[in-house]
Amino acid sequence: MYIETVKKNMKLPKTVRILDTTLRDGEQTPGVAMTVDEKIRIAQRLDKLGVDTIEVAFPVSSPGEREVAREIHKLNLNSNVCGLARALKKDVDAAIDCDVDYIHTFIGTSPLHRKYKLKMGKEEILSKAVDTVEYIKDHGITAEFSAEDATRTEFDYLKKVYGAVEDAGVDYIDVPDTVGVMIPSSMNYLISELKKDIKVPIGVHCHDDFGLAVANSLSAVEAGAEQVHATINGLGERAGNASLEEVVMALITRYGIKMNIKTELLVSISEFVSRITGVKMPPNKAIVGDNAFAHEAGIHVHGVLQKAETYEPITPEMVGHTRRIVLGKLTGANAIKAKLDKYGIELNDQQFEKVFNQIKGLGDRGKCITDADLKSMAENVLGKAQKEIVKLEGFSVMTGDNVMPTATVKLNIDGEIKTAAKTGVGPVDAAINAIQSLMGETVDIELDEYHIEAITGGTNALAEVFVIMSDENGNRATGRSTVDDVVMASVDAVLDAINKILIER
Amino acid sequence: MYIETVKKNMKLPKTVRILDTTLRDGEQTPGVAMTVDEKIRIAQRLDKLGVDTIEVAFPVSSPGEREVAREIHKLNLNSNVCGLARALKKDVDAAIDCDVDYIHTFIGTSPLHRKYKLKMGKEEILSKAVDTVEYIKDHGITAEFSAEDATRTEFDYLKKVYGAVEDAGVDYIDVPDTVGVMIPSSMNYLISELKKDIKVPIGVHCHDDFGLAVANSLSAVEAGAEQVHATINGLGERAGNASLEEVVMALITRYGIKMNIKTELLVSISEFVSRITGVKMPPNKAIVGDNAFAHEAGIHVHGVLQKAETYEPITPEMVGHTRRIVLGKLTGANAIKAKLDKYGIELNDQQFEKVFNQIKGLGDRGKCITDADLKSMAENVLGKAQKEIVKLEGFSVMTGDNVMPTATVKLNIDGEIKTAAKTGVGPVDAAINAIQSLMGETVDIELDEYHIEAITGGTNALAEVFVIMSDENGNRATGRSTVDDVVMASVDAVLDAINKILIER
Repeated sequence: MYIETVKKNMKLPKTVRILDTTLRDGEQTPGVAMTVDEKIRIAQRLDKLGVDTIEVAFPVSSPGEREVAREIHKLNLNSNVCGLARALKKDVDAAIDCDVDYIHTFIGTSPLHRKYKLKMGKEEILSKAVDTVEYIKDHGITAEFSAEDATRTEFDYLKKVYGAVEDAGVDYIDVPDTVGVMIPSSMNYLISELKKDIKVPIGVHCHDDFGLAVANSLSAVEAGAEQVHATINGLGERAGNASLEEVVMALITRYGIKMNIKTELLVSISEFVSRITGVKMPPNKAIVGDNAFAHEAGIHVHGVLQKAETYEPITPEMVGHTRRIVLGKLTGANAIKAKLDKYGIELNDQQFEKVFNQIKGLGDRGKCITDADLKSMAENVLGKAQKEIVKLEGFSVMTGDNVMPTATVKLNIDGEIKTAAKTGVGPVDAAINAIQSLMGETVDIELDEYHIEAITGGTNALAEVFVIMSDENGNRATGRSTVDDVVMASVDAVLDAINKILIER
Repeated sequence: MYIETVKKNMKLPKTVRILDTTLRDGEQTPGVAMTVDEKIRIAQRLDKLGVDTIEVAFPVSSPGEREVAREIHKLNLNSNVCGLARALKKDVDAAIDCDVDYIHTFIGTSPLHRKYKLKMGKEEILSKAVDTVEYIKDHGITAEFSAEDATRTEFDYLKKVYGAVEDAGVDYIDVPDTVGVMIPSSMNYLISELKKDIKVPIGVHCHDDFGLAVANSLSAVEAGAEQVHATINGLGERAGNASLEEVVMALITRYGIKMNIKTELLVSISEFVSRITGVKMPPNKAIVGDNAFAHEAGIHVHGVLQKAETYEPITPEMVGHTRRIVLGKLTGANAIKAKLDKYGIELNDQQFEKVFNQIKGLGDRGKCITDADLKSMAENVLGKAQKEIVKLEGFSVMTGDNVMPTATVKLNIDGEIKTAAKTGVGPVDAAINAIQSLMGETVDIELDEYHIEAITGGTNALAEVFVIMSDENGNRATGRSTVDDVVMASVDAVLDAINKILIER
């Protein structure tokens, strides 16, 4: 409601173009490097997502970068394929050589860049910018120009540079906030002032050093900017660039701007990029984080169950996410009742009180409660004692450099003692193989997922192992164990999951 | 420079108070739970950091929450100790019972909250708000009032509610953007309008559903808001709250507002909260992320080496961080030369070219290059063959449920064969103990850090182990190994590090 009021004073464009720079500025994330093949797969997904332009590489910098640009060009994507080039003929030639259809060229314009990096005067920089744009346009290629560190450049000089490249035939002007120094108000002011003179579309490229990259991008759009540079997961140098998923969802839902982006693909592309780059998003990342549509607190869950809009600004489906209700110490009775209902477990008031207090107690001790925990608590209260159908009676494992890792397991399966020895690629694999072979005579249990939490500390730190197992009927259960021996933790976690599955049968 | 221009139109307060809600809204992060002791330690750090008010608990919700509030009250902190309470007498009583000196009470005011959650009319809600504030003030306690979901509440009604609690003697008014639906412009408008009537200090509590929590908080301050609710690492429900570190650094460095916060403690408190909550920040998190002051790309490193301000908006020291130069495929010759200089390694042009091309090649294949990698490449080129001073000749390990984990290691240390057997808490610990005991006769090598990367997949997935070791002279080296057996990977990584240290001696 308040947005409608302030929208009247904005100069919003009809639509906003997205130039995605995950493959270029995103790859400049320190510690991130992608192979040619990985970049091609990301480009294909960005194309499907519907971004207007993909900045695929900085061709002059390495043969691998040139291969990326060439290979992506061959895919015939709907998105423009853009190469980055300094305002140097050799950089542009390298890009042209890769057949890109769009070249983004840049040169620093701020006093710091002129003095310390380029060691050039204002006029020299201006003429290099103009020459480069003319050179790109002479080749019939779309040209975008960035005045690097624009937001620390004197306004008169900045306007002069942009005006000169506009006269030279540039197609898009980009205003990079290279060091992330802007705030939304100042970005709005700068773009408004530039808009008075510049007629070609203006875009912004914001960095997130103060957590303002998305807000600064939106603020530029409020002043009439027609393009935003963004990256999946906000990757990029230092604190990164504006996060594509946040910019897009804000523009569509907060401003009502129509865009070509298939928003329902946002979560999956974020996960894909996270997997490839190894940069995991935290649960509290906006739009795509694991918790973006998760609810724990008692009060809020009550609201969400009554009407989701009470505590969710958009539906999870809109971005390809799912709603999660998490139990914890702050969980109210309503959320727990809803979970039990879902599992068809009926408790009387007294039984419910017992489960409720158990959950609060665990929560106060710093524990999170999973659905499986809740079910086994409820079943305990209902008198269905949580039996250990399968018990470990004996276990040993041997590994080494000339030893085939071998595990011997003795299990008590519902009263019957069985023993098996198996090998594996390592001690954990061998142990799990032995357990599976013993179980195989009773039920067909498979390991669907195995996860060791990152452990930092000494080698005697606790190892946390989490597994998901399933049987031939599709019953699934999680198992978890935390002990200081990673092999024992794995065995415990697997037996925990197996027992949960057997109880369900 | 552009900020100076727009600042003239702002109604900036002299200072901005911080109400930290890491222990309350932060703990509502789904999946996060802290023990009483952990909360006390965080409160002590927040007090040292200099936040004005710490919202420590929601006392009515559980006995553990009440214990937290009571224990923190006893610490006699400089910060105010605040408890949360719904606009209910029993909630306020629970908070009073914990001796808090500040109560933050709230009730939903938006149509959605009135209809679906509270099932109350406007007048009933207003009178509950007023009654609760009066009840708190009758006890001589500082009172803050929030109209939950204020940003989706009709302005006239919102103003009426805030006006009524002001008349009832409230000390602070808070405007929560409960579902994160605002944009900076609309937040600025709303606060400006409220400021026309409300005389007590106004604060905001922003959620990050569209990545705008920090920007919305700053925008409120531009309109005159005197307080911001924030959490360390932006923890909180769904996408979380405004990140304290970003709000503070923006207010101080972008707006020039004086604050009591000891900014040099920001990185360490972020790491501390991360460790306790298990919510790891991504490297591209603003201010406190691992990459916030890291540089990879060739062009940028050149600039940073010339003058740090070229690519850094603030110094890393200001927030307790350190600058890192990372080598990768985009790394230019300048950065590599600077690193070699730092290590006192001199290469001629031809030798340098060789190392440079190796780095580019590794980068194109998706690899990151550590300092140790660079040194060993340079030493190879210089003809100092990277000797394996210590070689593994034989290794075996045994563990089980009734077996003391035991490892036997046979090493070739510079030609001499030595064997040792040691026990440990698990097979990895035992193996490392055996290696250390063998090395101990030659040099005193310690394991400083041990890290298993999170592994997801089958139990035969690759385990990546990373170690940092040091000797008695302070020589440090990293070791890394990726094989499918977590025990073997640990042994390989440790020997890798030991060899690097021995070469340095």
